[in-house]
Amino acid sequence: MDDPLGNGAERLHDWIVNTRTFAGRTGMDGRGEGIDDLFVRTQFDGIGASIMGRNMFGPVRGPWAADETWNGWWGEDPPYHHPVFVLTNYPRDPVEMEGGTTFHFVTGGIHEARQRALDAADGGDVWIGGGVNTVRQYLRAGLIDRIHLVVVPILLGSGERLLDNITGPNGRLPGFEPIDVSTGNNVAHIQLAKAEGEAGKLP
Amino acid sequence: MDDPLGNGAERLHDWIVNTRTFAGRTGMDGRGEGIDDLFVRTQFDGIGASIMGRNMFGPVRGPWAADETWNGWWGEDPPYHHPVFVLTNYPRDPVEMEGGTTFHFVTGGIHEARQRALDAADGGDVWIGGGVNTVRQYLRAGLIDRIHLVVVPILLGSGERLLDNITGPNGRLPGFEPIDVSTGNNVAHIQLAKAEGEAGKLP
Repeated sequence: MDDPLGNGAERLHDWIVNTRTFAGRTGMDGRGEGIDDLFVRTQFDGIGASIMGRNMFGPVRGPWAADETWNGWWGEDPPYHHPVFVLTNYPRDPVEMEGGTTFHFVTGGIHEARQRALDAADGGDVWIGGGVNTVRQYLRAGLIDRIHLVVVPILLGSGERLLDNITGPNGRLPGFEPIDVSTGNNVAHIQLAKAEGEAGKLP
Repeated sequence: MDDPLGNGAERLHDWIVNTRTFAGRTGMDGRGEGIDDLFVRTQFDGIGASIMGRNMFGPVRGPWAADETWNGWWGEDPPYHHPVFVLTNYPRDPVEMEGGTTFHFVTGGIHEARQRALDAADGGDVWIGGGVNTVRQYLRAGLIDRIHLVVVPILLGSGERLLDNITGPNGRLPGFEPIDVSTGNNVAHIQLAKAEGEAGKLP
């Protein structure tokens, strides 16, 4: 509970936490305004809804606790400020937080979550935050158009593999092309886009 | 034989091949002079000897062919221009190429190769080129001081894992710290250095 990302792993998020944009959305004290800040901004600007797996929402496993007081890792005012759809096998009523974030709990799987997120986004884009298992499900289904991958060069242990032996709906590796590699504060930002001819049908 | 790196994998090396420095050492026609070129230069300047595994040298497996005409993937004038020590289980006489590169075949393992490379380097640094299995052996032995890791964001298949569940001689993850992340032509250059207190004893 005190170390959500694991021992030493909070360093994975230093690049986010140290930015002015993240500070502005969370009350933290980051002041960075460089490339990292631009990427944090694009994570929120133009995004109408987000999707995440249950482990990214919080530590509870199995059925929700009877009193349902656990409202996620994200504090009273999560940085999203838009609807967030949480994939889970256990139904739960929506949780409305301060600042415009409402967590909706989706038990019907990735396609239901995608449709509800697209409806809620009302023309905005949908951001799939993670974790690894969630992103892999959407990759396999061919439903991801852009990838922003951040490489933080620290050794932590085994972790989970985002792109390990993954095949798309056609049985081949997903067709993504690198469109930019940029450098932040000791991290690399890699952007990939679905290759020509493999673009998802827009809703 | 026609596709040493595997189907589509030559793109892993575009960043090298397109540089002026690599062209100057191989007769290829690269003209790039940016960050990638600086990194290719540091791969050669100040390096007195190199070490590589047998699969990086060439495709022959098992005993060397009787006529020993296969002199590696590297052409008549390999880019090294210094002694290269090739780890192998099969003895073979040294092969002297044009331009100052001599391949020496080492059957005694990584420690013997290291000592011979250090002696040959005569005060210069020793570069361990790869492949993955070779680098992992040196990492586990705690004998690597600096890492230059290049992230090329293309999906190719399963490959080999450089840093997968690796433990150093003390049974822990090797103690490396990121010292720089730079951006080349759609690749990220990551440099790590052995952490304070874990530095290898210099010879």
